[in-house]
Amino acid sequence: MMSTQSYLAALPTPCLIVDQARMTRNIGRLATRARALGVALRPHLKTVKSVAAARAILGAQVAEGQARPMATVSTLAEAEVFAAAGITDIIYAVGISPDKLDRVIALRQSGCDLAVILDSLPQAQAVAEAARRAGHPIPALIEIDCDGHRGGYLPQDPALIDCARLLQDGGAELRGVLTHAGESYNVTGRAAHAAFAAQERDAVVAAAQALRAAGLPCPVVSVGSTPTAHAASDLSGVTELRAGVYVFFDLVMAGIGVCTPDDLALSVLTTVIGHQDAKSWILIDAGWMALSRDRGTQRQAVDQGYGLVCDAAGTIIEGLIVAAANQEHGIITRRPGSAAPLPDLPLGTKLRILPNHACATGAQHREYHVLPADPDAEPVVWSRFGGW
Amino acid sequence: MMSTQSYLAALPTPCLIVDQARMTRNIGRLATRARALGVALRPHLKTVKSVAAARAILGAQVAEGQARPMATVSTLAEAEVFAAAGITDIIYAVGISPDKLDRVIALRQSGCDLAVILDSLPQAQAVAEAARRAGHPIPALIEIDCDGHRGGYLPQDPALIDCARLLQDGGAELRGVLTHAGESYNVTGRAAHAAFAAQERDAVVAAAQALRAAGLPCPVVSVGSTPTAHAASDLSGVTELRAGVYVFFDLVMAGIGVCTPDDLALSVLTTVIGHQDAKSWILIDAGWMALSRDRGTQRQAVDQGYGLVCDAAGTIIEGLIVAAANQEHGIITRRPGSAAPLPDLPLGTKLRILPNHACATGAQHREYHVLPADPDAEPVVWSRFGGW
Repeated sequence: MMSTQSYLAALPTPCLIVDQARMTRNIGRLATRARALGVALRPHLKTVKSVAAARAILGAQVAEGQARPMATVSTLAEAEVFAAAGITDIIYAVGISPDKLDRVIALRQSGCDLAVILDSLPQAQAVAEAARRAGHPIPALIEIDCDGHRGGYLPQDPALIDCARLLQDGGAELRGVLTHAGESYNVTGRAAHAAFAAQERDAVVAAAQALRAAGLPCPVVSVGSTPTAHAASDLSGVTELRAGVYVFFDLVMAGIGVCTPDDLALSVLTTVIGHQDAKSWILIDAGWMALSRDRGTQRQAVDQGYGLVCDAAGTIIEGLIVAAANQEHGIITRRPGSAAPLPDLPLGTKLRILPNHACATGAQHREYHVLPADPDAEPVVWSRFGGW
Repeated sequence: MMSTQSYLAALPTPCLIVDQARMTRNIGRLATRARALGVALRPHLKTVKSVAAARAILGAQVAEGQARPMATVSTLAEAEVFAAAGITDIIYAVGISPDKLDRVIALRQSGCDLAVILDSLPQAQAVAEAARRAGHPIPALIEIDCDGHRGGYLPQDPALIDCARLLQDGGAELRGVLTHAGESYNVTGRAAHAAFAAQERDAVVAAAQALRAAGLPCPVVSVGSTPTAHAASDLSGVTELRAGVYVFFDLVMAGIGVCTPDDLALSVLTTVIGHQDAKSWILIDAGWMALSRDRGTQRQAVDQGYGLVCDAAGTIIEGLIVAAANQEHGIITRRPGSAAPLPDLPLGTKLRILPNHACATGAQHREYHVLPADPDAEPVVWSRFGGW
């Protein structure tokens, strides 16, 4: 039996660490919320890209009484891996292009209930044509724009009805409507996130009503982002909630008040490789290759650089950030304005870095080292996948 | 036989494309320069992370008359993969930490002449101890600081001599000195890069002279960065030149005048997945997962967003950039200030995006699709690796 500390000491660095107690708490928090709100939870698995992690997430859904695990994905590669692992209710939540429809049909024919999303007549036409060609009604959700963030029809756009009819009459299946308030990442505090949650709900509920008023079906009414999911208080008319990064949380989410740094379940283990004492720099072997180039906190009230510095046990060392990163070098120094003395962190010291953005940092790695809640239990490795 | 255009049309997107004619030209340009300067070229393989690409790069060295291929790496995983592929003269150019020395020794014992770098007495002590323990003199280069960018001793620092003696007397092998003018990336134009090249040369030559004056050996005197390598005019006293990103080049290098956008050999193939006409947005399936979060041109005179937009054949479409990126969505729009009309790029159109930083964009992918110089020849796939 190996203790957590000796396990960490023996790991080649840099590598990705999961604090399982925190992850379990984060998963449970949103699963409980979703049940209280009376909606199904459809976790976005783009954050974890791991079958083992997906099982930990979706197990909480089943424990909360959902009939079958539901997932959201951002690539067809994710859909293929998760479908092969038995997750068979999936929305591919990136606008579909015609060249990807053969893979969608193959997945559906293998038994996965994969739905696509779209927001234009050419897409609806392509999906309907592919469905007719395959003799298989591909389900599609129409994307609704609730905040001007990215794609989608405005709920009152008459083209929404044209698009829905083109799908439904053309041989596809109109599965419903979906929205995502990406702009909720840019505001801070529960009240601001609750306002975006209401905006998500109002947009999709209005779109669903418009479809139903036109005699069209709309069984699924889907909303979500991590900030809005944690602030919504009334999801009347909504059937399901999507969120992804809540599983790990990160400094961006802490910066807008959705969680605290103590909720962050993902970190990068690194080793001190040098010092430039005259500049108060501590060099580590985690550069942007290990941390990612994501600087999501740059525009927030508190810029966390490339990440917050913790000791090997995961306790934050006050006043220290990774201020700069090259490919395989990170430079730790005092946060601007911090008066804290630079701690003595000699060559070979192990540290853990809390990242700006869990999705981006995770994507730089091939596996998670999962530290169990019980410090006497053995850590385990969960593999990650990538690609499209 | 498949034409390049039909090959590209059939590729799942997003994916990584290499223009082999440009890559070959870039490789040849620096190989010829190095020969004219009278120094060996030791390419940094952290950019390509591919055995097939490394063979293309190192073949040019051999053609220029070097006795054996020499390489620089940024991780021990790179050293292990390239050593297994027969590349056996390697510098691991990130400051060594004691925990990594077992892997260094194992590589050396397998027949790879792997050298480490360091810039402190504790590192020298650890390397010497490990060398004595293994009964094997690990070669080490001492890192010299030529521009305050990251690590290294100043050439006149008396601790440099102490460090060298600790290595040499302790059972390690003092292989030489090494520097890298990382600050050369932050200045524009040949004259500015030439000044940094002189600064690199002067720093390591002074350090080598100090070592030799103290009766210590200094066979290797190593300099380099892509900007300085292309501007150096006199490398007297230097034995070898290192550079990495020159193989592909990128928008950051074009922005500081080391190359032009027509030299860029790496791009990301993507598909148009949607439009928000009211905002003049074209959505593509290359977000930051495919392009990386690197925004290296943000602080340059011309901010290229997440990349410059080309048609599928690789011709730049004037005035268009990837202005924003989510995980799997890119948003193409006009460059701020551009009066160019938004071209008609319907759903399903294939485009290629030239990236800010080839090292970072490459790292998001598992393979290169290599388009041969001869348009009638078959494209090939080169696999990439990652990890540490």
